[in-house]
Amino acid sequence: MKYGYFSKDEREYIITRPDTPTPWINYLSNGKYCAMISNTGGGYSFYVDPKEQRILRYRYNNIPIDRPGRYIYIRDNDTSEYWSPTWQPTLKKLENYECRHGLGYTGIKSLYKGINCNIHYHVPLNDNIEVWKLEIKNESSKQKNLNIFSYVEFCLWDAVSDQRDLQYIQNVAVSKYDYDEKAIIYHFFSLKNGLIFFYSNGDMINYDCDRTSFIGNYHSESNPICVEKGMCNNSEALGGNPIAAICNRLILNPNETKVLIFILGLSKNKSQINEIIQRYRDPELIEISRNQLNKRWEEYLEKFKVNTPDENFNLLINTWNPYQCKTTFDWSRYVSFYETGIGRGIGFRDFNQDTLGVCHTIPELVRKKLLIIAKNQFENGKVYHLYFPLTGKGGFPDYINPCMNFFGDDHLWMIFAVNNYLKETGDFSILKEKVSYVEGSIGDLYDHLKRGINFTIDHLGPHGFPLVGTADWNDTLNLHGPNENGESVMIAMQFHKALLELSDIARELNLITDNEKYLDIAEKTKIHINKNAWDGEWYIRAFDDNGATIGSQKNEDGKLFLNTQTWAVMSKVALKERALQCMNSVREHLVTEYGIKLLNPPYRRYHPELGGLTTFIPGLKENGSIFCHTNPWAEIAECILGRGDFAYEYYKKIAPTTKNDIAEIHEAEPYIYSQMITGNDHPKYGTAKNSWLTGTAAWTMKAATDWILGIRPEFHGLIIDPCIPTTWNEFNVNRHFRDSIYNIQIKNPKNISKGIEEIIIDNITVENNLIPAFKDNKKHNVIVIMG
Amino acid sequence: MKYGYFSKDEREYIITRPDTPTPWINYLSNGKYCAMISNTGGGYSFYVDPKEQRILRYRYNNIPIDRPGRYIYIRDNDTSEYWSPTWQPTLKKLENYECRHGLGYTGIKSLYKGINCNIHYHVPLNDNIEVWKLEIKNESSKQKNLNIFSYVEFCLWDAVSDQRDLQYIQNVAVSKYDYDEKAIIYHFFSLKNGLIFFYSNGDMINYDCDRTSFIGNYHSESNPICVEKGMCNNSEALGGNPIAAICNRLILNPNETKVLIFILGLSKNKSQINEIIQRYRDPELIEISRNQLNKRWEEYLEKFKVNTPDENFNLLINTWNPYQCKTTFDWSRYVSFYETGIGRGIGFRDFNQDTLGVCHTIPELVRKKLLIIAKNQFENGKVYHLYFPLTGKGGFPDYINPCMNFFGDDHLWMIFAVNNYLKETGDFSILKEKVSYVEGSIGDLYDHLKRGINFTIDHLGPHGFPLVGTADWNDTLNLHGPNENGESVMIAMQFHKALLELSDIARELNLITDNEKYLDIAEKTKIHINKNAWDGEWYIRAFDDNGATIGSQKNEDGKLFLNTQTWAVMSKVALKERALQCMNSVREHLVTEYGIKLLNPPYRRYHPELGGLTTFIPGLKENGSIFCHTNPWAEIAECILGRGDFAYEYYKKIAPTTKNDIAEIHEAEPYIYSQMITGNDHPKYGTAKNSWLTGTAAWTMKAATDWILGIRPEFHGLIIDPCIPTTWNEFNVNRHFRDSIYNIQIKNPKNISKGIEEIIIDNITVENNLIPAFKDNKKHNVIVIMG
Repeated sequence: MKYGYFSKDEREYIITRPDTPTPWINYLSNGKYCAMISNTGGGYSFYVDPKEQRILRYRYNNIPIDRPGRYIYIRDNDTSEYWSPTWQPTLKKLENYECRHGLGYTGIKSLYKGINCNIHYHVPLNDNIEVWKLEIKNESSKQKNLNIFSYVEFCLWDAVSDQRDLQYIQNVAVSKYDYDEKAIIYHFFSLKNGLIFFYSNGDMINYDCDRTSFIGNYHSESNPICVEKGMCNNSEALGGNPIAAICNRLILNPNETKVLIFILGLSKNKSQINEIIQRYRDPELIEISRNQLNKRWEEYLEKFKVNTPDENFNLLINTWNPYQCKTTFDWSRYVSFYETGIGRGIGFRDFNQDTLGVCHTIPELVRKKLLIIAKNQFENGKVYHLYFPLTGKGGFPDYINPCMNFFGDDHLWMIFAVNNYLKETGDFSILKEKVSYVEGSIGDLYDHLKRGINFTIDHLGPHGFPLVGTADWNDTLNLHGPNENGESVMIAMQFHKALLELSDIARELNLITDNEKYLDIAEKTKIHINKNAWDGEWYIRAFDDNGATIGSQKNEDGKLFLNTQTWAVMSKVALKERALQCMNSVREHLVTEYGIKLLNPPYRRYHPELGGLTTFIPGLKENGSIFCHTNPWAEIAECILGRGDFAYEYYKKIAPTTKNDIAEIHEAEPYIYSQMITGNDHPKYGTAKNSWLTGTAAWTMKAATDWILGIRPEFHGLIIDPCIPTTWNEFNVNRHFRDSIYNIQIKNPKNISKGIEEIIIDNITVENNLIPAFKDNKKHNVIVIMG
Repeated sequence: MKYGYFSKDEREYIITRPDTPTPWINYLSNGKYCAMISNTGGGYSFYVDPKEQRILRYRYNNIPIDRPGRYIYIRDNDTSEYWSPTWQPTLKKLENYECRHGLGYTGIKSLYKGINCNIHYHVPLNDNIEVWKLEIKNESSKQKNLNIFSYVEFCLWDAVSDQRDLQYIQNVAVSKYDYDEKAIIYHFFSLKNGLIFFYSNGDMINYDCDRTSFIGNYHSESNPICVEKGMCNNSEALGGNPIAAICNRLILNPNETKVLIFILGLSKNKSQINEIIQRYRDPELIEISRNQLNKRWEEYLEKFKVNTPDENFNLLINTWNPYQCKTTFDWSRYVSFYETGIGRGIGFRDFNQDTLGVCHTIPELVRKKLLIIAKNQFENGKVYHLYFPLTGKGGFPDYINPCMNFFGDDHLWMIFAVNNYLKETGDFSILKEKVSYVEGSIGDLYDHLKRGINFTIDHLGPHGFPLVGTADWNDTLNLHGPNENGESVMIAMQFHKALLELSDIARELNLITDNEKYLDIAEKTKIHINKNAWDGEWYIRAFDDNGATIGSQKNEDGKLFLNTQTWAVMSKVALKERALQCMNSVREHLVTEYGIKLLNPPYRRYHPELGGLTTFIPGLKENGSIFCHTNPWAEIAECILGRGDFAYEYYKKIAPTTKNDIAEIHEAEPYIYSQMITGNDHPKYGTAKNSWLTGTAAWTMKAATDWILGIRPEFHGLIIDPCIPTTWNEFNVNRHFRDSIYNIQIKNPKNISKGIEEIIIDNITVENNLIPAFKDNKKHNVIVIMG
């Protein structure tokens, strides 16, 4: 069953029926003001911090799902009939419904009894507001006398107090219509950033600021009493539940079209409201704002363009995967329709991975943010697990183990992210930047990286593997016990990779002692892992507090874990034979129709010594779901092994485009990766959960561009090393790299997966597969013949 | 506008239309299992702790209001029409709707197209379950073929995770139908107390455990797809949103009545489910359980019975006020339809006050709990502000001032509560009970009381008044500043009263040194207050951190505060002349039609130096509302001054019975006190908020029984000292006191308020107005002639 399709230009996903299995959403944001919006107008807005500064309310766990939102009600005053042009919240059947999710904007249109509505929502680049433009046309042969009600429900700024401290918070907020500014202004003492306002450019006949006044007692968004009656009550909210609802009168002759504009947002003070309104009050001004937004996105996307025989691959790599990468870079795992935005901050580990997806498109911003987040490191090398951009403070989640108050891997991810930045930009100056530690002392960024390595060296367990602390990548693998001796083989592999990368960096910096030292530790680590973590057909996952192995043939459940196989290969810990063997085990035991499972078999009961992982229902989350984040690691590993068909098979298994025709099973958006897909041990096998905010975005982008397409930045240039499906005869990549543009045509006449016969740059054949970084602001043609 | 009335026997409030302005609720509880239920079936259940152990979900801030609940849907299979006999959630118009809230039970009945339903909900005394009995009668002339759907939505046990950590919590819970136990069983690893189950004794035809399966996507409780279709899907919930929905088939001939029984609750394990079901599976067994419950309540109420010329007074004192007192004693301010149950615990100050309302009815339980809560005292005399009964731990709220991490008054309330217990029971042995301090050392309860006094002595500010700490009784009077010098005159008055009471106790214990010491400090305190806190016409309220006075003629806003006038009189700080003067000022400036305001004029802007109080909108909460809790203090003060007409006028102003005919203004339940009534500075003047959990319950009971009726326990007997309205010619009180029953007839032939001419006990005239404690398990007749 299909609910939509991609537009021809690949820049929009067009939803053709409103009753999608879950809300199919979009992020409209300038990086500070963020509006999440569903295909039926649901969702909410916040400013910088979804917990501390929430503008609109959203009711998670609500039924009907996806309430409230940015709602419009149209009421035909001649018939008293009313409906919502976005379907929600009246849920009345519409003709010609269509929702177009584009890059930073969403449009929803529909027809109801001769009235055609087209609503366009976007957040401008440089103002902390959202703009709704309603184009409304009378396609009937009769004059229409309409009331247009617009409606938003305010959150009481602090989203936790909003749902917890009703007695306090509902006695402090004021929402009133301000006749000077012609806007509803919402304000209370703790709203330190100023005012929230809602404006409409139409002929207002009345308004409401109090929810009960507008909605009516025992009514809901589906049937507000004021919409039923056809008029608002001009209520003020002095306490209670503040809203903004404006009723505009609209007379439409046959074939006449009119435009109404609504603005919701923040302003510093009353006088600034008017200044903002002046810049968005008519459709032409909105068009300018829209064009600026569009231009920004096109600039963002032009850095990497691909043309392969697989159109779905192209549209993911050219539009939707980098679009999602920008969203995860902005919001990490902070806030979505699944992540309530009140329980966590930006993840340190998450953020560092998210940079991998955007380093080639917005390296300046990556640089800036890498230096900010590096401040979350302690002098001993460990880092805060979370970071709160509003306050700049770091923190740990509630479930931190007080005895092992670190995550064994967090600090290592910074090395991968910085190394990736260096390879993309060649900008080694970042390593000299001074960055403070949590305690207040200061070191350069290179010093921060080294302290990360030292932390792991200082925190090894009884088997010589890194202590897991509260957890490693797998947040719910909590190997607590009286000895606090849980050890992670995955971290050991990451440690090996981090050592290799830091030794490479040291070499580039001519720090030979460091280079040799890290290489030496890496070699010992590799030998240690191969000696102590090989189980016969794969690598084990960890040791628990009692020293028992996890992820072994010997175990009853959880025999085989994906991550220590993919990372064995990615980290160069696995020798050729073992690399093949462990990835063959993955193929044999973990690969399913919808993707690769995180482990097998799932745990059937709770094991306190293994922690949260074993509390999940088999087939869900870390207990044997297809945890999408980890699938691109398998793709990379297969590329390293040269098995391009396997890599591409795995790529396609989780690609959202492949879910478009099974949307009733997949449920989540088919234009965006989800965190997980239910595994085959669960009755709802194949259902995706937690779309949008997932490391899958960055890692899949990385796997596809660096490893499958094989255009991979190195310190001194671009490596060309494709590992493609054998069915591909050729493909083309247009890539920006250090102020040059490379138009790379790759031909595969022998239908192989891997191997280069010849590379010709600007008509000159080169010796190896490293294309130099010309840094010359010019275009260069690269022809690659595989063989 | 009226929504209901009291039953003739005063034991029920009968609501006659479902669309009450707010949900009008009841608490069904055995002290551990607690089910809050509204007049339309809304509400939720928890076990001991509403945050950690919540059984059913409730959506605060939802629209429609009051969802979900304990729902029944009746579907006529011949017409496919369906409705809810409790009105919610289908909201279809019913005939003969009636909700009867009684003592620990609620009944809702209605008629719809010939089907008469009568649902009775109660929580048994000795099982942690709730029982719903549905009596359904076919009053039509046709056979009816019905499907009966029952429905509850489970909370994921931890109510904070349930709304915050969706990604985790919705992947760990399982709800399944268990064919062995014939019940839906809901379970997950962290539900340590066992299982939650839902059972129906009817002919089940199918069931659902997954919310989406039963409700349908984009549907709501109003129109579940399974009810529309007429059948459930036998779904299991493995993750997601677990529910229990059971569909029973019922064929009803004309005039036939059948009964269905539903049981929801906790059991230790599967086999215990069956054992519980056996005890409640038929109507006769339920009748036994109901009778036990009724007997318990009648025993509770018979301890104090009054008959005065005012029937509304009688029904409040004989039934509804003590009923509310028991609820506040059980749940303090922990959880209600306004208090979400996730933000706080039992209040230390609150609990001690709540004992005042039940000490004459359940003194053994008061004794037990006083000794438990006293463990929240530190060695230096301060106490935790909150107490969590599940864990036994104490704590402070989020907004505690880290530099002044105490509430200046909390510890003093324990002295009042213990003294009240001593006067009621004469049981001085409680003072010898060993009670630990937070640090672990142990002292007897008398030692605890003394340390409370010492804490205040050790924490005086620059003007010699007690430091306020985070706040005093007024939780939002936060006088923070760089010097942490905020001082409270109210605490000083309470301190004076506590000193007098403790000196009395010391005298009874023959501890003459203590007795004299505390009397001496009290005298100095009284002089100090009168010298430094008298403003000319009233007492000031406090000094801020800069030493500026609060609650003075000099102030722009907040000139006059109620509490330092009432407490001046109650604490015996005010000399006769000043006592009259300050209470006259109250009458002049604070008394409104609906009650006495907390202060006047309200603050018009936020004053950081005064704290949260000034963040409230004028007329709401502590910023000039009629904060009901404080009104009985004015009643007591007027009784002390002998002005019985004033006292009774104030009593009636906030009495819920006086709201019955203005329910559309008052909004909250007219059978129960609310925390506040909006003051006359706010447009919604007269609206009550936060019903049920308020110190108003205990204090009004105290004001009415001890001061207006004037039957007041003292160490050695009952003082008879009425202060009544002059219109009363006589009244009668039947009071249990220390194992005797006193039938007290008071005659007022001269229509005065105060003064005793003669007292005759068992036909013998006595000298003074102290009736001895006979402790003889006998009845005694007391005749009192006022004059």
